[in-house]
Amino acid sequence: MAEEDTKGITISKDKDFSAWYSQVVQKAELADIRFGIQGFLVHRPWGFMIIRKIYEYLEQAVEAQGHLPFLFPIAVKEADLQKEKEHAGFSPEVFWVESAGSKKMEERFALRPTGEAQIYPLYSLWFRSHNELPFKGYQSRISVYRNEMTTRPFLRGREFLFFETHDVFNTHEEALDQIQQDLATCENVIREKLKIPFLYFKRPDWDRFKGADATYSPDTIMPDGKKIQLASTHDLGTNFSKAYTIQVLGKDEKKHYVWQTCFGPGIWRSMAALIGIHGDDQGLILPFAIAPLQIVIVPVTFTDKKDVTEKIVKVGQKLEAQLSKVGYRVKFDNGPDTPGAKYNHWELHGVPLRIELGPKEVARRACSLVCRTEKKRIPVALTAVEKDIKKHAKMLDEALEKRATAYFKHNTRSADLFADLKKLLHQHRGFVKSPFCSVHKEGEACADKLQKETEGAVVCGTLYPQEEKVKSGQQCIMCGKAAKHLVYIAKTY
Amino acid sequence: MAEEDTKGITISKDKDFSAWYSQVVQKAELADIRFGIQGFLVHRPWGFMIIRKIYEYLEQAVEAQGHLPFLFPIAVKEADLQKEKEHAGFSPEVFWVESAGSKKMEERFALRPTGEAQIYPLYSLWFRSHNELPFKGYQSRISVYRNEMTTRPFLRGREFLFFETHDVFNTHEEALDQIQQDLATCENVIREKLKIPFLYFKRPDWDRFKGADATYSPDTIMPDGKKIQLASTHDLGTNFSKAYTIQVLGKDEKKHYVWQTCFGPGIWRSMAALIGIHGDDQGLILPFAIAPLQIVIVPVTFTDKKDVTEKIVKVGQKLEAQLSKVGYRVKFDNGPDTPGAKYNHWELHGVPLRIELGPKEVARRACSLVCRTEKKRIPVALTAVEKDIKKHAKMLDEALEKRATAYFKHNTRSADLFADLKKLLHQHRGFVKSPFCSVHKEGEACADKLQKETEGAVVCGTLYPQEEKVKSGQQCIMCGKAAKHLVYIAKTY
Repeated sequence: MAEEDTKGITISKDKDFSAWYSQVVQKAELADIRFGIQGFLVHRPWGFMIIRKIYEYLEQAVEAQGHLPFLFPIAVKEADLQKEKEHAGFSPEVFWVESAGSKKMEERFALRPTGEAQIYPLYSLWFRSHNELPFKGYQSRISVYRNEMTTRPFLRGREFLFFETHDVFNTHEEALDQIQQDLATCENVIREKLKIPFLYFKRPDWDRFKGADATYSPDTIMPDGKKIQLASTHDLGTNFSKAYTIQVLGKDEKKHYVWQTCFGPGIWRSMAALIGIHGDDQGLILPFAIAPLQIVIVPVTFTDKKDVTEKIVKVGQKLEAQLSKVGYRVKFDNGPDTPGAKYNHWELHGVPLRIELGPKEVARRACSLVCRTEKKRIPVALTAVEKDIKKHAKMLDEALEKRATAYFKHNTRSADLFADLKKLLHQHRGFVKSPFCSVHKEGEACADKLQKETEGAVVCGTLYPQEEKVKSGQQCIMCGKAAKHLVYIAKTY
Repeated sequence: MAEEDTKGITISKDKDFSAWYSQVVQKAELADIRFGIQGFLVHRPWGFMIIRKIYEYLEQAVEAQGHLPFLFPIAVKEADLQKEKEHAGFSPEVFWVESAGSKKMEERFALRPTGEAQIYPLYSLWFRSHNELPFKGYQSRISVYRNEMTTRPFLRGREFLFFETHDVFNTHEEALDQIQQDLATCENVIREKLKIPFLYFKRPDWDRFKGADATYSPDTIMPDGKKIQLASTHDLGTNFSKAYTIQVLGKDEKKHYVWQTCFGPGIWRSMAALIGIHGDDQGLILPFAIAPLQIVIVPVTFTDKKDVTEKIVKVGQKLEAQLSKVGYRVKFDNGPDTPGAKYNHWELHGVPLRIELGPKEVARRACSLVCRTEKKRIPVALTAVEKDIKKHAKMLDEALEKRATAYFKHNTRSADLFADLKKLLHQHRGFVKSPFCSVHKEGEACADKLQKETEGAVVCGTLYPQEEKVKSGQQCIMCGKAAKHLVYIAKTY
């Protein structure tokens, strides 16, 4: 056990969320920020194994929809980036590779800030006929690069982890159907596996990705009351197919620009939400499906009782083999530390279930089961251990979900008057549902005014796919005109 | 089906291996070299899925040995790279990031040419006590960057795929044991899964990695007779732990420099060997364990027989579901192309087994099974299909292995006289086993002379772990002194 994690968390999550978060990132060995280049961090094994699970679930979900994996270079040609400029506008943040060895390069290249400017030039070469569509492609386990000024582990980096689908269709209807499927992927992975509640929004026009006709995003609330965006899907229309000349010959023998969507779940942000929403003052808490280690078995042995110790170790190893065989990620921790130190270590790391094996338990052919959420010792007969693990894993997940959902609901309020909105944002933060004049261009002035008068709150959008209906007589919370939409407002990361 | 792959391979592998290789890479949709930046290529879905399988097998193999996955940034600090300079000597090839947006950066950083200079500074922070060792870490599915002058798909790139383990031990004995385990990983993945034969060498002193005390590598022979290195393991001794100050407190309460090894299977080179060694004039041939698609089911239907067609489609879909359920990667190809076009397409892509379903077969409750290696139609009852697939998958793998091993053995010769060596290298290329004065410093002059007088042949090394014994009286093939080693000589990629 490395020095840094022996002391445990010393800051209360309720009292200082930001400092607590930093401690968990470091002490649960999720990331190392001592790499020495700002915004570039090392994903340590424990953190990386959690993230790898998130990637695996996403890969399974999109491949079940027919997505094929590919891998594009890290480089982008300057000319390709220029074509994207008006749409995405990443240029001010782009890193440039300009030398090799001691020589200036003849033509510099950029590190990708996102995939469009790399992928779409090739798409213009790959497809010829409507027969070849739909094509759904994606890349996973990659990083992108943006020269951000302020950086924080899993929240904002100059290098951060990425996952992106890029889909090509003959019709807009198919593209719209894909947007529903992207929402299903978020439900499947973010809500079901990570146990993170969210609302799914259609962004107001002024807040969508510049190259998109519409942008859709699941947002959740962090413990400090700020909303965090967990993914985004863009209905790209034919904007990029026109910029990069991606055309296919239709049934009518004429060339048509293709319809495109892209979907990017925020790998880092999902990790940040996982840490922030589920963790407690002992450290991380991991939902069962995401935990690199689901069950840790700790022997409680005594140096003066050699016979009993041997027996305990034997039972522990057998139990580890048994549980591993039926598919659990399990470890028998027979290391040199004391049982207490091991409990603290694995609690800090968020392992969902712990099995304790002491002389009394082994004599009774039993063990003690401890849930990360409950901390109660539950006696379990060794013959019943598989059944009880299944039961308690489910209970732990339900407890996490219940707690997260309760917090989320408690912090999703309504306000019809600006004074109430302001008070809610100040007291509870979270989401506030309010009537708004327009989510189109003409509503932007109200959004700007809102932002100024609330220290930065933004219009997250309208609920998707079922937009809520405005009641007759409801007025825009900013300008007082007849409201056309019910929007959600929040302070943001 | 995209335009480029409809025509099939037009070049004979025997007549022009290099042109054949380029065609297969392009037409089997493995990589796209039209990205527009030299040495940076796009891994297309088919190629990427093959490579992903290689990665998965490697990940399983090293994790079974206790390796933990992590992920380091793409960046390297200039100061850290300097420390490594004398060992690895990558500086002349390093790419530098020097600007962000329109501004020159205060401190430039390099794109990693390999992992040591990034990882070892962190290792110096992570370990304090001998209790924390051994530590085995690795990163997978990453790329590294070197400004190579000539580039070729999967053989040499400015960006190329990487996999690296970095292990830390208390003793040299443990490090030496790890080297045996790295060899086992090569056996497990390269020989067993990819069906690529190789010899495992200890490199001569002048050809080892500069920072290593010893380097070990599996080499194979490509169809053009040149040897290609498939992986390397370095016994780093305490060279890097001294350069980066990686020390732990021993049982004696004193600080000790740790012992290190690192292992890097060549992902691209394994892919190149897979393409080159198994492919034929119809295109790629994939061993069963590596194929993204193991079985393709092709319906043979006729537009004038609608009832029969419906029946065939029903049987095909059912068979696809059945085979998928028992774990095969299978596709029922009900696309618009003709059966003949589909046969060509999937043969070109190397799919091991094809099932044909026509009116006659379906009437008899049967199908035809065709192996990619044999091309004979084997009638199989639908009730026996799972058993026969298992049998023929095994036969295909054995056929690939047999052919590859026969070629490999045929091109591994011996010569005691320089004239014979020269003739063999000219006629057959491949490996030539010859007596050599020394694999240490004092043999380097003979190796230089050899290289000059044979248009570039090199000393691959001595066999490992069992070095062959020199017979009494054998003389160095270059200088005529008493030979101390039997070495293998080959022209190289």
